[in-house]
Amino acid sequence: MIMERQYVVGIDVGGQTTKIGVVDARGDVLSQTVIRSDIFGADADAYIAALAEAVKGVIKESDKEGQIRGIGVGAPNGNHYTGTIDFAPNLAWAADGSVDFAKKLTAKVGVPVSLTNDANAAAVGEMTYGVARGMKNFIMITLGTGVGSGIIVDGNLVYGHDGFAGELGHTNVVRHNGRACGCGKTGCLEAYCSAIGVARTAREWLESSNEESLLREVENITSKDVYEAAKEGDALALRVFEYTGSLLGRSFADFVAFSAPEAIVLFGGLARSKEFLYEPMKKAMEDNLLKIWKGKVKILFSQLKESDAAILGASALAWEL
Amino acid sequence: MIMERQYVVGIDVGGQTTKIGVVDARGDVLSQTVIRSDIFGADADAYIAALAEAVKGVIKESDKEGQIRGIGVGAPNGNHYTGTIDFAPNLAWAADGSVDFAKKLTAKVGVPVSLTNDANAAAVGEMTYGVARGMKNFIMITLGTGVGSGIIVDGNLVYGHDGFAGELGHTNVVRHNGRACGCGKTGCLEAYCSAIGVARTAREWLESSNEESLLREVENITSKDVYEAAKEGDALALRVFEYTGSLLGRSFADFVAFSAPEAIVLFGGLARSKEFLYEPMKKAMEDNLLKIWKGKVKILFSQLKESDAAILGASALAWEL
Repeated sequence: MIMERQYVVGIDVGGQTTKIGVVDARGDVLSQTVIRSDIFGADADAYIAALAEAVKGVIKESDKEGQIRGIGVGAPNGNHYTGTIDFAPNLAWAADGSVDFAKKLTAKVGVPVSLTNDANAAAVGEMTYGVARGMKNFIMITLGTGVGSGIIVDGNLVYGHDGFAGELGHTNVVRHNGRACGCGKTGCLEAYCSAIGVARTAREWLESSNEESLLREVENITSKDVYEAAKEGDALALRVFEYTGSLLGRSFADFVAFSAPEAIVLFGGLARSKEFLYEPMKKAMEDNLLKIWKGKVKILFSQLKESDAAILGASALAWEL
Repeated sequence: MIMERQYVVGIDVGGQTTKIGVVDARGDVLSQTVIRSDIFGADADAYIAALAEAVKGVIKESDKEGQIRGIGVGAPNGNHYTGTIDFAPNLAWAADGSVDFAKKLTAKVGVPVSLTNDANAAAVGEMTYGVARGMKNFIMITLGTGVGSGIIVDGNLVYGHDGFAGELGHTNVVRHNGRACGCGKTGCLEAYCSAIGVARTAREWLESSNEESLLREVENITSKDVYEAAKEGDALALRVFEYTGSLLGRSFADFVAFSAPEAIVLFGGLARSKEFLYEPMKKAMEDNLLKIWKGKVKILFSQLKESDAAILGASALAWEL
């Protein structure tokens, strides 16, 4: 009897952790685990070796050995065409060059690997299992440590001529004296509207004024602290979200001018601040849209569980293998 | 004997004139004519009636009556899905609403009509007959009275969910105190980098300084005057092109982050100022690209004859009918 290969593995490579899961055709995660991504320094091979062990472990745990069709991987700067992770600022082992990721992981695990960037994987996950089900044209924006994006046109991911399309976190949002971004440019959307950007805005504003704020009592402010303060009605924290939302909304208007999506779908840690971000974001987008799009483009928030979504999105890529 | 329908009509609707031509399968223009677009006020029906007569005339002149497969039309804010021209600021008869263009023209001429915006038509023309032959991913930017764009992803035009995708002329290029644009927004690329924008920059700079310039002797400065002055080595005129080019280049970097094109292809009256625009444009683009794209994305100039290109591009749409 021939065993059908009816399971896939999804891997979400993040700056701090890597999530790994075995997924069935209905999108149920049968088993999963997490390893650190940030303890291998510049040694890509050491990371890939640890990852391969974790993948084998999670397959064993799911009891589906020999039935894995493929591995789908979402990683920062993951290139679908070449299978490499190139110049990914948040991954020390891939920050300064190109890592032949798909080939090396395939060699170690014995299963084909399909790679794309994490936000592209999230977009596919959202189209397959989430709020974008049935949509043919939408833009996924991931608001996490960084700002990522995955663009769906006519039901397909836009990869571009080299596989790197969809880096909207590195489009410009502040031209004059823009903040330095991790990518080496200045004024990028990511430098303002990521979790790190939100914390930075709060710290800058606290330093440049004497305004009272709950955040004055916090050391090493994070975006979560800003969120908690906003929840308490802290005026400065509320303004930080208003500012962040309006920068996002302005940028969304420009993205709409590009691909005329039915919706912008938001996902990631910072998207949980929906209650403070939505109104300024929507207003700024509408204010900056051409007449033909006013009132026509939705801003939606992912409703998938964050850990599952990343694994599911990545795993969806593997069905094509 | 059944006569094969092996000819098409291409129509390029511009703010001032409309160009009409009969085209064969090899891309030769057999006959062509021009009518005014700007003498009908808000009366769309009068314009369409005049256009239909001109189309019949040009078909008759080509001696291919009964052999026309279809009519392809490129028009500002032309919508491929609905066949309508909607809220086109530069066309008085379509500025304030939606004109059922394709249906009305079909009714008058008796041949099916395929409509898209003028820049999309130019992109198809460039892919079929021009410098983008064989490219699957590129962005067409038309630098004329306005700034238009047509985006090709995986060999297809990006229409978006509603048919209006590719309005890159109305993405933001100056956030603070940006110029009012014809579209009602401020700071749009078109307000700075169109022919009108270039003339406006020159006039503003002349007003705000006492710098000597050949342009001081010109009344009602146009972009052509600025070009002529730059040719003479006029320092202010040269700086106007440097500024225009660098704004374009910055924006191109953001466009690359979206769809990772192989090339940006420039077309239109202002693109003839290549000798002054190219260097600052290229430099600003490279300065603002992510590492992964530096040195990889070409800026190309259309080599098609401008009048032919518009007709050819529009006509290429009709082959699909």
